[in-house]
Amino acid sequence: MKIDGTPFRTIWLDQDGWSVRIIDQTKLPWSLDILRLTELGQVAHAIRAMQVRGAPLIGATAAYGLCLALRAEPSLAAMEAAAAMLAETRPTAVNLRWALARLLTLLRETPEPARVARAYAEAAAIADEDVAQNRAIGEHGLALIAPFADAGRVVNILTHCNAGWLATVDWGTALAPIYAAHERGIKLHVWVDETRPRNQGAALTAWELGKHGIAHTVIADNAGGHLMQHGAVDLVIVGADRVTRRGDAANKIGTYLKALAAGDNHVPFWVAVPSSTLDWSLCDGIAEIPIEERSAAEVATVTGRAMDGTITTVRLTPKDSPAANPAFDVTPARLLSGLITERGCCAANEASLCGLFPEFALPPPL
Amino acid sequence: MKIDGTPFRTIWLDQDGWSVRIIDQTKLPWSLDILRLTELGQVAHAIRAMQVRGAPLIGATAAYGLCLALRAEPSLAAMEAAAAMLAETRPTAVNLRWALARLLTLLRETPEPARVARAYAEAAAIADEDVAQNRAIGEHGLALIAPFADAGRVVNILTHCNAGWLATVDWGTALAPIYAAHERGIKLHVWVDETRPRNQGAALTAWELGKHGIAHTVIADNAGGHLMQHGAVDLVIVGADRVTRRGDAANKIGTYLKALAAGDNHVPFWVAVPSSTLDWSLCDGIAEIPIEERSAAEVATVTGRAMDGTITTVRLTPKDSPAANPAFDVTPARLLSGLITERGCCAANEASLCGLFPEFALPPPL
Repeated sequence: MKIDGTPFRTIWLDQDGWSVRIIDQTKLPWSLDILRLTELGQVAHAIRAMQVRGAPLIGATAAYGLCLALRAEPSLAAMEAAAAMLAETRPTAVNLRWALARLLTLLRETPEPARVARAYAEAAAIADEDVAQNRAIGEHGLALIAPFADAGRVVNILTHCNAGWLATVDWGTALAPIYAAHERGIKLHVWVDETRPRNQGAALTAWELGKHGIAHTVIADNAGGHLMQHGAVDLVIVGADRVTRRGDAANKIGTYLKALAAGDNHVPFWVAVPSSTLDWSLCDGIAEIPIEERSAAEVATVTGRAMDGTITTVRLTPKDSPAANPAFDVTPARLLSGLITERGCCAANEASLCGLFPEFALPPPL
Repeated sequence: MKIDGTPFRTIWLDQDGWSVRIIDQTKLPWSLDILRLTELGQVAHAIRAMQVRGAPLIGATAAYGLCLALRAEPSLAAMEAAAAMLAETRPTAVNLRWALARLLTLLRETPEPARVARAYAEAAAIADEDVAQNRAIGEHGLALIAPFADAGRVVNILTHCNAGWLATVDWGTALAPIYAAHERGIKLHVWVDETRPRNQGAALTAWELGKHGIAHTVIADNAGGHLMQHGAVDLVIVGADRVTRRGDAANKIGTYLKALAAGDNHVPFWVAVPSSTLDWSLCDGIAEIPIEERSAAEVATVTGRAMDGTITTVRLTPKDSPAANPAFDVTPARLLSGLITERGCCAANEASLCGLFPEFALPPPL
């Protein structure tokens, strides 16, 4: 998508043809810092420190991380070690493991001299496929938005966290239908949950919507239920970090609360995910999806821009008060209107998901 | 309650016998600033700027504000004007209007020369009654906590915003049962919602619990649903700013979301209120309770302590992104386990409320 008229992706190869460029998302919305990653350790740090975040982008970044590791040492043992190290950087998003498994499967069969080139080609394919899939998610999701736009009415959409182009290689997942609707001239207004503790909504979603010219209003995470009670939300679209085969969706902490409010107020609640976010090996999301516990400092403090322009971290809690920071929660499938995937929309249950992705259907019992 | 061993109330008369002392709650948890209020305008500012907040404390403060106004000018006209001005400072909490109406009813019948003394006596009565009522709420609420403490087990209670002693004259509403249980040696741990945008949980509840030695953990407002899904919350107790005769409860924005999560996870959800918070004139809380819309700056920015110790306000959102700030939401009675009042606990419906408060029962239809 564009930043001040210039087209960007969130990750791309440098002009040197091998080093990796990313936008340092921890600096947004205050400054657009482009980082150059040249080795595995930098990539692991970028994922862990959330310089890149968002399930699809984490997957693409890990793929390029493996390329950089192979460039330094193309042996099988080094490759396996690098992949294991990258897989540990974040526990919840399944795309990370999906992308690494895809590269490993291919590269284990690839002779060592050809491995680096093939890794770069596959990482590029993962990135390009992500863009194409998100574009398709946008088109399928557009069909859910359009009915609310009768007679030029403004459609009010609520989203949580950032599942925009910044969370993917381009287009986004939850925001892809919004960008598609905007392209078609549908009038939109987006309620942006600030998404404490890391404020991806206030910092990233508000920034990317603003840069693209889409009307939006930032709200505290507490406000969505009240807005839904008063008819101010037509539909909710969020992304996810992992969706089980029965449709339970792990997404940024607080998503579950918004799904409950949507259900209580008969507001459609959709989860937009590329197929790389589907974890066919899991069923019960609440019991089975590992939930990352991040640093208490992310709750106890917040970073923003002080009046003098300096980026400043301030403490919000008394110095002796502990804090806890589960980073994701799981919304049970029963609370979802459905899933928006690159192959179309479906209900959040195994039969419907397997209807779109028959290659993952389990064989019938004997 | 005590601060570092010294007993405090949130509002009291100065040694001069007429000016009013309050704790400036906008400075907590960073410093304990005591303000001296000597005129009506300062009182109105203190309520508006949330130097005092919490429905019961707002009521007591408004009562003393009327005393200061009468001291300057004891005429009926001046009194009515002062009361009207105080009533406009905050729209949602009903205690404000309740306290003013109580004083006006009394003082309209009081000869002008006796008015000031009688106003001070009545304001003191309101404050003392609040303390006694909250103490009673604590005892009644204790009975809800005790069953979870079998065999010395730690009871996990979640609360939202600050309905502790800082929100009242003393003891608090939602936290009164927690203080009562702590007095009885019950082991407790409190999950403290930070309560964006003004962080009354992170700043005030964490502070007062810490000063009293009660174990607690601050969490993002987004986290409560996840904790309930995983059995980490035994019960929820919150306060309210206004409760209708059928039991709908207006409280700090986000309360409704926690009530939905409690319902979805079979966690008891109680609202603790003195009878001055009951608005017998209203029935449908969502349609009828006015919801204060506060400044967008409270969402766009946050104030905390920078690493150099200075209290600093930082901006969280891009400069062109608007923000909205509804300060309360309404939890429908159907989501409440019940109400804890100074006369006992009851179900959140008109029949049960009128059982405890028969003086407000409507006459039977002819």
